[in-house]
Amino acid sequence: MTAPFSTLAEFRDLLAAAPAEDAAARAAAGARNARLTKPPAALGRLEDLALWYAGWRGEARPGLERPQVIVFAGNHGVVAQGVSAFPSEVTVQMVANFAAGGAAINQLARTFGASLSVHPLELDRPTADFTRGPAMSEAECAAALAAGWEAVDPAADLLVTGEMGIGNTTSAAALALALFGGDAADWVGRGTGVDDAGLARKRAAVGAGLAANPQAARDPLLALAALGGREIAAMAGAIAGARARRIPVILDGFICTAAAAVLHRAAPGALDHAVAGHASAEAGHAGLLAQLGKEPLLRLGMRLGEGSGAALAIGVLRGAIACHSGMATFDEAGVSDG
Amino acid sequence: MTAPFSTLAEFRDLLAAAPAEDAAARAAAGARNARLTKPPAALGRLEDLALWYAGWRGEARPGLERPQVIVFAGNHGVVAQGVSAFPSEVTVQMVANFAAGGAAINQLARTFGASLSVHPLELDRPTADFTRGPAMSEAECAAALAAGWEAVDPAADLLVTGEMGIGNTTSAAALALALFGGDAADWVGRGTGVDDAGLARKRAAVGAGLAANPQAARDPLLALAALGGREIAAMAGAIAGARARRIPVILDGFICTAAAAVLHRAAPGALDHAVAGHASAEAGHAGLLAQLGKEPLLRLGMRLGEGSGAALAIGVLRGAIACHSGMATFDEAGVSDG
Repeated sequence: MTAPFSTLAEFRDLLAAAPAEDAAARAAAGARNARLTKPPAALGRLEDLALWYAGWRGEARPGLERPQVIVFAGNHGVVAQGVSAFPSEVTVQMVANFAAGGAAINQLARTFGASLSVHPLELDRPTADFTRGPAMSEAECAAALAAGWEAVDPAADLLVTGEMGIGNTTSAAALALALFGGDAADWVGRGTGVDDAGLARKRAAVGAGLAANPQAARDPLLALAALGGREIAAMAGAIAGARARRIPVILDGFICTAAAAVLHRAAPGALDHAVAGHASAEAGHAGLLAQLGKEPLLRLGMRLGEGSGAALAIGVLRGAIACHSGMATFDEAGVSDG
Repeated sequence: MTAPFSTLAEFRDLLAAAPAEDAAARAAAGARNARLTKPPAALGRLEDLALWYAGWRGEARPGLERPQVIVFAGNHGVVAQGVSAFPSEVTVQMVANFAAGGAAINQLARTFGASLSVHPLELDRPTADFTRGPAMSEAECAAALAAGWEAVDPAADLLVTGEMGIGNTTSAAALALALFGGDAADWVGRGTGVDDAGLARKRAAVGAGLAANPQAARDPLLALAALGGREIAAMAGAIAGARARRIPVILDGFICTAAAAVLHRAAPGALDHAVAGHASAEAGHAGLLAQLGKEPLLRLGMRLGEGSGAALAIGVLRGAIACHSGMATFDEAGVSDG
């Protein structure tokens, strides 16, 4: 589906006009939940999840039939600052691994019955090194947002966005600093596993990125253009595109959450259709989740990206929906309700 | 399969002779894990899970094909003390709900591809009220252990044990107090939802149970007979029976973990083949997990029993095994490993 915007200003207007959940469907799901054969609230967060999902899908007793995982890949000019433990060639190598079915996200998408599509975004044309100016022009950023928006299957009933991009924890950390303030050290972690010297280079690059792009601290979408990458912008575009179709979203780890945070800062409530799939071991993720007010479903020390943590959380959501939509009520089962 | 014991003493001897994991298979799985296309340790706890499972299954690259969920049901004489928000009839009503496919565990077992079998244990003959003496004779306890042992499918490659039994959080709390000490208040929670007066009655019943059964503090298996229920003993028997066949186990919540703790106290290492599926919202569960030294896979505020939290955790284990056994290595994928 063609994205209904071509500039950052038009994208901003779409965010402000995003649809709300179906309150009647959510209320009907709540009434059903109260009659299911279990003590009140005994399924804990599974009950909240089922009601959230019902509201966004507009059905009191929804199914989960067509989850979609999209992995966006991009390359980053900031790798020139020595910020990653892996060379940039790994981005394209991993895209080939995704295509061949050999990566973690392939196994997880299959395990939880999700489709998987992979979108490499101009891998041979990295973004500019943001320590010297904007990583992307506004037009490039809008194009990446549109690529994400258009990658969403309108028939999907759940979206997970993942990423691959050597150098992108540095980009996400710079974005988080621009969006939420603090110090570079608050947001910079070891990514795929840099040593102490690499960590120091990451912090320095993030600080230099903010200094070279003062407009980033003023405007979330300009921050995305200045400090993000194409795969980060595409994730933001996909999450926004899912909202436009009331497709619920499970957020992945640090980089995905940084992308989502751009939407949150640009339009309050822009992530109401999203839950946090997991708490990443990457240092800055907990701070991002706290800023978004989202409690992760899983805490398993993962820090792989690719959408892997969110894909694993599809299993939790599947369990929640199966209970909500499949269980008998007290009346149906002839069980005394206390 | 007929249980190879008929007395508590024989069961105790079997626990002491339980098999260990296959160290060579675990080491081979570790070597494979180190070559998979991901940064080292980036899958966090999924990697630990895969290696644990590989060791117990004796395969470096195992599958998960036949998970089994068994729900045991029993009735408890201690309900005469007013310890539950639901009447005892609900136990048999819920067994009918399991048979009809209407309970939460039916939906979760189906979602994660597990078989489900339900074993009601003499529901019309509740255990004795343990505030006045032993809930079960030693022979009754051994028979319930044997029923659990025999319920395990020898061809299963994963076991989840669940339970249904009005009054059984009181029984589990008394068992925990006998096994680990402390105060009754440390182990007693609201179960299916008792009010403050009900909570006070539960605490009083647990205290009275310990006073009426001094042998329980001396011996874990005598504690099981004195304070447990048939479904609790059957869970312990099933978990021990799984160990004898090197079938890995995912523990459920408070009641299942109390049953498992009997084995742990009777024979150190008896739960090495088990992981904690989730942290229940029931008050005493965190203390039991701390005593066992097990970190739960999920923390979702569930407190339903039936094996529901452990069944949900099958999804996490499926994801872990799918990644471990399905991913390409760096060499296979032609990806640079840093």
